[in-house]
Amino acid sequence: MKGFINYRKVLIVGLGMIGGSYAEKLSALGFEVGALARRQEPLDFALQRGMIAHGQTEVTRDYVSQFDLVVSALYPKAFVEWIRRYQDFLKQGAVITDVSGVKRAVVPVVQGMLRDDLEFVPAHPMAGSERSGVEHADSRVFSGANFIITPTERNTPEGIELVRTLGCILGFRHIAVLSPEEHDEMIGFLSQLTHCIAVALMDCKESEHLAEYTGDSFRDLTRIARINENMWTELFLENRDELLTQMNLFLEKFAQLRDALAAGDADTMKEMMRLSTYRRSFFDKK
Amino acid sequence: MKGFINYRKVLIVGLGMIGGSYAEKLSALGFEVGALARRQEPLDFALQRGMIAHGQTEVTRDYVSQFDLVVSALYPKAFVEWIRRYQDFLKQGAVITDVSGVKRAVVPVVQGMLRDDLEFVPAHPMAGSERSGVEHADSRVFSGANFIITPTERNTPEGIELVRTLGCILGFRHIAVLSPEEHDEMIGFLSQLTHCIAVALMDCKESEHLAEYTGDSFRDLTRIARINENMWTELFLENRDELLTQMNLFLEKFAQLRDALAAGDADTMKEMMRLSTYRRSFFDKK
Repeated sequence: MKGFINYRKVLIVGLGMIGGSYAEKLSALGFEVGALARRQEPLDFALQRGMIAHGQTEVTRDYVSQFDLVVSALYPKAFVEWIRRYQDFLKQGAVITDVSGVKRAVVPVVQGMLRDDLEFVPAHPMAGSERSGVEHADSRVFSGANFIITPTERNTPEGIELVRTLGCILGFRHIAVLSPEEHDEMIGFLSQLTHCIAVALMDCKESEHLAEYTGDSFRDLTRIARINENMWTELFLENRDELLTQMNLFLEKFAQLRDALAAGDADTMKEMMRLSTYRRSFFDKK
Repeated sequence: MKGFINYRKVLIVGLGMIGGSYAEKLSALGFEVGALARRQEPLDFALQRGMIAHGQTEVTRDYVSQFDLVVSALYPKAFVEWIRRYQDFLKQGAVITDVSGVKRAVVPVVQGMLRDDLEFVPAHPMAGSERSGVEHADSRVFSGANFIITPTERNTPEGIELVRTLGCILGFRHIAVLSPEEHDEMIGFLSQLTHCIAVALMDCKESEHLAEYTGDSFRDLTRIARINENMWTELFLENRDELLTQMNLFLEKFAQLRDALAAGDADTMKEMMRLSTYRRSFFDKK
């Protein structure tokens, strides 16, 4: 595998908030960035702002075959389908990476069908925005965020190193390597469960007048209740077993606190709060 | 009742984060602020920084009787007890207000035992910090926050107006008037429930290594899991029935989302997300 610096032509497949942010940053770093999008509008937007050098709505062999590195910024199912339909167009030896928020449903399927000369190095940039679309692209969200690579035994050390370097130059602070299974458990808890909580909490009451009385805590807990329902429903369903496990774990703890309150058991309540205070403290040591 | 400008000597009872923030702001506005605290250290801290003009650890008639306006920044039960023991010391016609986060357990008890010439106007400043103690006092947290006054039929329009003016000069943006019952329902949902969620979520897993993988959402949802267990346990228990109602409402919505996921019911999931997105939008229109 040739060194990172030789992967200078990068194709972004899917030009939404995340794809656009990758494009913007890589163009700023001097890469030649091309893009595929279903509609012309995001391409025009990105071209006008210098986020991409060129782009197409049509997926053609001529266009796709010129790229050394391909970044899929599609939803998980669409990514699997794209590889199925278009992997024949890819350049010999090209490296593919992705941004999918679930990994077990994507990694073995894609790696299992991929041409022998291609390598797919899965990654999950843990950053984004509750707003979708290339017009909300902003690579500054990567700064200080976490980037998780989830390789399998089909990956080469060089391929993993290439994507690690990609995460690094995009501005991520902490780059971790997990198995797809570890990733899905972690993400089920840290990201998907929190979105479930926010949605359920926001759905509890009519809210038009609540904002007048609220403090910061409700605002913080519901920020992510503004949610892209198509993407997150797909992510939840593609990680269903793990997310259900995490939801049930949370339900158990929440019911424990409720039962302690109902029983007037101040000792258990304080014990749970001391534990949460202690555990939260690890998030401040930065 | 004399006009607001004549209430120039203000006593802060209890010099923690909130009491200290009131003291700091009122001193900066030119009021003569005195304080009562159980220990000498917070008094020294506040004196050195000009947050108070004077203060005592001992509650004496001589000291207490000079103040026109008394602000209790004690925990709810301690406030009730303070009034029981020391109301005889208060100046003829003095006005008392508080900062308690629960109202039904405080307002009728205090108003029921108060001398006829005194008036207690209950208030709840919806601002604070997860850090306690006068050394974390910072009146800037009031800026843009909500202030709720919870009067009863025992209050006078002049007394309510006085405390409304107090909230205004402290820097609160929105000043609302609710009954103690409405307040406790609202706060059970907006504040206490959110703290229960944060504590339960943070208690789910050992966290020492979680911070390496987290995005912003988990961080946002657990900020308030760092919690003063004595104060919040008292607040929860003093609002037990209402908080249990809100916790059960949340459990119901959360279980609805879990059941939809378990059934693979994408339509219900998307419907719940569209609703949460719509309802959250009212919090952005500022």
